[in-house]
Amino acid sequence: MSSTYLGADGGEPIGVAVVGAGYWGPNLVRNFQSSPAFQLRSLCDLDLARARTVLGRYTTVAATDNLDDVLGDPAIAAVAIATPAGTHVDVAQAALKAGKHVLVEKPLAANYADALGLVELARDCGLALMCDHTYCYTPAVTRIREIVRSGELGEVHYLDSVRINLGLVQRDIDVLWDLAPHDLSILDFVLPDHVRAVEVSAHGADPIGAGRACVAYLVLKLSTGAIAHIHVNWLSPIKVRTMIIGGSKRTLVWDDLNPSQRLAVFDRGVEVATSDELGPDERRNMMVSYRSGDMVAPALSEKEALGQMVAQFATAITTGAPSPTDGGSGLRVLGILEAASSSLAAGGAAIAVSGGRR
Amino acid sequence: MSSTYLGADGGEPIGVAVVGAGYWGPNLVRNFQSSPAFQLRSLCDLDLARARTVLGRYTTVAATDNLDDVLGDPAIAAVAIATPAGTHVDVAQAALKAGKHVLVEKPLAANYADALGLVELARDCGLALMCDHTYCYTPAVTRIREIVRSGELGEVHYLDSVRINLGLVQRDIDVLWDLAPHDLSILDFVLPDHVRAVEVSAHGADPIGAGRACVAYLVLKLSTGAIAHIHVNWLSPIKVRTMIIGGSKRTLVWDDLNPSQRLAVFDRGVEVATSDELGPDERRNMMVSYRSGDMVAPALSEKEALGQMVAQFATAITTGAPSPTDGGSGLRVLGILEAASSSLAAGGAAIAVSGGRR
Amino acid sequence: MSSTYLGADGGEPIGVAVVGAGYWGPNLVRNFQSSPAFQLRSLCDLDLARARTVLGRYTTVAATDNLDDVLGDPAIAAVAIATPAGTHVDVAQAALKAGKHVLVEKPLAANYADALGLVELARDCGLALMCDHTYCYTPAVTRIREIVRSGELGEVHYLDSVRINLGLVQRDIDVLWDLAPHDLSILDFVLPDHVRAVEVSAHGADPIGAGRACVAYLVLKLSTGAIAHIHVNWLSPIKVRTMIIGGSKRTLVWDDLNPSQRLAVFDRGVEVATSDELGPDERRNMMVSYRSGDMVAPALSEKEALGQMVAQFATAITTGAPSPTDGGSGLRVLGILEAASSSLAAGGAAIAVSGGRR
Amino acid sequence: MSSTYLGADGGEPIGVAVVGAGYWGPNLVRNFQSSPAFQLRSLCDLDLARARTVLGRYTTVAATDNLDDVLGDPAIAAVAIATPAGTHVDVAQAALKAGKHVLVEKPLAANYADALGLVELARDCGLALMCDHTYCYTPAVTRIREIVRSGELGEVHYLDSVRINLGLVQRDIDVLWDLAPHDLSILDFVLPDHVRAVEVSAHGADPIGAGRACVAYLVLKLSTGAIAHIHVNWLSPIKVRTMIIGGSKRTLVWDDLNPSQRLAVFDRGVEVATSDELGPDERRNMMVSYRSGDMVAPALSEKEALGQMVAQFATAITTGAPSPTDGGSGLRVLGILEAASSSLAAGGAAIAVSGGRR
Repeated sequence: MSSTYLGADGGEPIGVAVVGAGYWGPNLVRNFQSSPAFQLRSLCDLDLARARTVLGRYTTVAATDNLDDVLGDPAIAAVAIATPAGTHVDVAQAALKAGKHVLVEKPLAANYADALGLVELARDCGLALMCDHTYCYTPAVTRIREIVRSGELGEVHYLDSVRINLGLVQRDIDVLWDLAPHDLSILDFVLPDHVRAVEVSAHGADPIGAGRACVAYLVLKLSTGAIAHIHVNWLSPIKVRTMIIGGSKRTLVWDDLNPSQRLAVFDRGVEVATSDELGPDERRNMMVSYRSGDMVAPALSEKEALGQMVAQFATAITTGAPSPTDGGSGLRVLGILEAASSSLAAGGAAIAVSGGRR
Repeated sequence: MSSTYLGADGGEPIGVAVVGAGYWGPNLVRNFQSSPAFQLRSLCDLDLARARTVLGRYTTVAATDNLDDVLGDPAIAAVAIATPAGTHVDVAQAALKAGKHVLVEKPLAANYADALGLVELARDCGLALMCDHTYCYTPAVTRIREIVRSGELGEVHYLDSVRINLGLVQRDIDVLWDLAPHDLSILDFVLPDHVRAVEVSAHGADPIGAGRACVAYLVLKLSTGAIAHIHVNWLSPIKVRTMIIGGSKRTLVWDDLNPSQRLAVFDRGVEVATSDELGPDERRNMMVSYRSGDMVAPALSEKEALGQMVAQFATAITTGAPSPTDGGSGLRVLGILEAASSSLAAGGAAIAVSGGRR
Repeated sequence: MSSTYLGADGGEPIGVAVVGAGYWGPNLVRNFQSSPAFQLRSLCDLDLARARTVLGRYTTVAATDNLDDVLGDPAIAAVAIATPAGTHVDVAQAALKAGKHVLVEKPLAANYADALGLVELARDCGLALMCDHTYCYTPAVTRIREIVRSGELGEVHYLDSVRINLGLVQRDIDVLWDLAPHDLSILDFVLPDHVRAVEVSAHGADPIGAGRACVAYLVLKLSTGAIAHIHVNWLSPIKVRTMIIGGSKRTLVWDDLNPSQRLAVFDRGVEVATSDELGPDERRNMMVSYRSGDMVAPALSEKEALGQMVAQFATAITTGAPSPTDGGSGLRVLGILEAASSSLAAGGAAIAVSGGRR
Repeated sequence: MSSTYLGADGGEPIGVAVVGAGYWGPNLVRNFQSSPAFQLRSLCDLDLARARTVLGRYTTVAATDNLDDVLGDPAIAAVAIATPAGTHVDVAQAALKAGKHVLVEKPLAANYADALGLVELARDCGLALMCDHTYCYTPAVTRIREIVRSGELGEVHYLDSVRINLGLVQRDIDVLWDLAPHDLSILDFVLPDHVRAVEVSAHGADPIGAGRACVAYLVLKLSTGAIAHIHVNWLSPIKVRTMIIGGSKRTLVWDDLNPSQRLAVFDRGVEVATSDELGPDERRNMMVSYRSGDMVAPALSEKEALGQMVAQFATAITTGAPSPTDGGSGLRVLGILEAASSSLAAGGAAIAVSGGRR
């Protein structure tokens, strides 16, 4: 029946397989099925029964536990990988070598070196390598990117992100590696290209004896001198997901748990007079003034992030143009995470970020 | 007319003078006037006109610009100091030497050494020395103290405090010294006596070129291994004042800007099974479980904090028993602030806290 | 493949068809597919292409535009009807006559008389007739039912429900018939059996000239003397969905748009001393006192309402026991709606409710 | 000492007395003392001790229990009345006859006829008669008046006001007379002059047996055909104070308990195409469309309402120009309240409002 369907651009839909039927895989399955640009060919998992359960009783999509079947199928042009993080590099490498475009669940790989290998391999093969940084494709974050990069806020002075919740304590990674990739990929997505993290300090605690940090604070020094701070926490009974982006002209507040008003742009701030404008006495007393203007909450569309991300993957495959969350973005996130882990191990000492260029 | 009034305990009211008619002085004037335990004798300020303006057109209270008149008046048994921070030590020292009980606006002094001198002087003179850590006397913080110290939360695992707002950029102190004393005095007030800060890291930024940190993050390592984090910020267009106190049994959330529900105690959390309860295979997969119980928002009284603080000052004078925000508490706060400043200067390096004992 | 699946109770799954592929049908399709108790056989819609689109490209479920095929299929034991309201009675009647159990989207029928006919037909045929009052199966409303019916609130004094939003102005029904069925079915669900609406007043407005009320207020006099008030509004740019249930002992507040705290039970209220307790002078001054206790926010499960409703439908079919949202409940809701329409036409005059017995 | 002070306009301050030292009197005392336009001469209460307590131990203002002393004092040009509602007419009449300008706590009088007498007396005497509708002088309501009367919202379609709380059950008046005057005076203040209430329906309940309505709903039909609805409630454990003003162009939402965002103006709504624009088929399907624009939260000043009201009283005295909350406004509020009481007694029947002209 698939041959009667055409993709979004009127061409044949792109054959795709999802690898990994765990926590995230079902979401990819659902969204690839909804996308006119793709034809979902199969779902692959080492646990065949799980793959079958995810597909359900009413499906025509094939389940398989053999990755080679997927990679050897010429009707499959793209592979979406949602396996455990430690296996990303192997599956992605095999897929790229088999000539498939690749979408990888965050993080791109378990470490910077592996990720760099993937980025280079994709580039050499001329294939799309994209990270599923889903948050970047929410209407809110897409709009934040527009607002920040248009200069509407002025120069970015500081960013403060909080992502706390009662979260699943992971067996293999700490809270930094579990949650901070979301914040870091958003920062990478919304900030202008010339702004990058140059130095990281991280502090953490493991108050429940889980064997890894369950509460962590990350301080980033950006190349412009601005500061970014990220608070991630698995132990909070209240859920908070806010980001403040303070600019020289305006400040943006994103509260992802307030669906009726996710974004607010405040025309308020502190202004410092330059010394030229002031006489000697004034300089002492009037250095700082306040601006108290209106707040605007921009209207947002209601598109599902994952659907947008899948559409972007199709565009990257079709046009060859890299997506804003391509392999390079996943690489930069890993560079910061590795520096953060080093800082955590060194009691919070500032560590330089490698590979921060964009 | 004062002789016809009796103090709270039925005795004569305590004669008191307020020194300093600036930002905070008027609040002290108002609250001493309302307290049956005190008889406000005078308001002293170098700027006599300002003192007169604060007292208003309808008062019988004397205004003066001469501190010696205050210190030499035998009807004045107590002095409340709300002058600029740099002058606290001199005024307080003079008052103690003149045999007056002393209440000092935060911070107790401009540095730890000066504060230590005051604490020792008051002890030697047998006079009350109290810090006006007003927040500690709000119904919410008083209740938090009861909850935390009663063990209702279990062991404290982490504290996270946020105090951000569009704030007045101070000319002489940075945002840490301006705002963090509130959080630090609250921590000192609510935590059990045996818990103290042993190490501090501080990170800050001055994105507007004000000449001092306008955004700062403070990480405290407590003597129990718990972590406390404080975010203070003068540049935020939104006002946030929340504190999360995560415990082994329950977690408390204080949102001071939610008058209908300032406190919430969550019977939720993450629990780690001890290895004794688990077999080798279970240990790997079932180490952590969740508890998702009810939340209770305790009813709070509506007493004004400053009135409670003033009553506590009267009690300290009358009974000789130190208040929970006595000089020692002010001293501990200064010890942490000085370590934080050192850390800030050293790029966030961890600095040991001096004088942390309680 | 279906024969390899067993229903929830270990028996064969119940064959079911969904009729209507419009706004609500896709949700029923999704939930019947997820339920182990059912085997979804077909989706029927006069517009075959729409039915196919709803099922998607990857399905094994049949699409049909012929209701007779559905009703004549012996493998289909139950029919779920999500067609336009005006057709409910005809489709439901045909299905019951064909021996199928029936689930009907709200409202049960377009008027009380039709609904009564359906209820009697189902009773005579010994078939389950259930209304899809989905809200009743949310964890919040299920819990409210337990709380109210257990007597935890004491006697119910008043109910106040607000359901406002920027809503689709319907072509055939006014805002009362569009939105109030939700509130009325919830009231029917949570109140004790002996409490029923006896009289209704309704006020409305059509400020945009839509040809029917777009804003409406409904006042219900309950059999106990309590008052219930419902505010429904299609024109509000803010979305509000709250219900207050004031009781003699406690008051419950349900805020459906606050996922972190949907329910709050306040141990606060006003208490009136009985005259026996009071002397003549006291009676005048001390009749009323306040109780200001804690608030408890009960923990709720996260089950999807529609899945619970589908499970309840299976139970009703399997056991023969009526569900709490059976035909009788749909009938009572229609009795109130018809009285409300009469009151609206009569400028708000109070109208008696027919068939209020339970 | 007063002679050394000049009023706001540089002239002598206006001598004023406050009559009534109960719940509201102390607020008037405080604000008249703060106002440069007034010189507070005395506080009068039948209970002299209470008057003295209100003035405090440190005052130079006289306390008296003799109204004649106040009315006979030529230095007193204005009287502010905060006695029980039943006595307003007598005290105000005596004051006007003694040639004093009069400010009256809400309600202006206990009934419409009495209030009308006062308005006429003040007009005949050429004296200012003003109602202390304090809410009208909050920055939020002042701004709402500007927004509504400027036409920014378009035509007003509906108003919905909720004012609920755990309130003091009054001994002499029901919840309508206690709370609805606030909403009604605000409506009178913010709506354009040509909009008036023509008809009222009221529903109420007394679930606690207090002898008067403790929960009430008021429906107003306005002269433009718009609808206004007011919900007042003494029995709600949660405090809500919101007003929605829906207009043809924009909708304003006022949430008085959200200090960080009291006002929100939504550029969202429902639009109905006029039949001219539509062909016959379109008319059926496309009558209504949605506009989903941004929301703007206007910046507000932080002036205290009562201080603004006192300043307005001074202006009315000095210039002779009536204030927006003059006697006529108080009269219109009473006209609606009396009609509401009649409706309540008649089971919610619609009652015409007398004296609705402005």
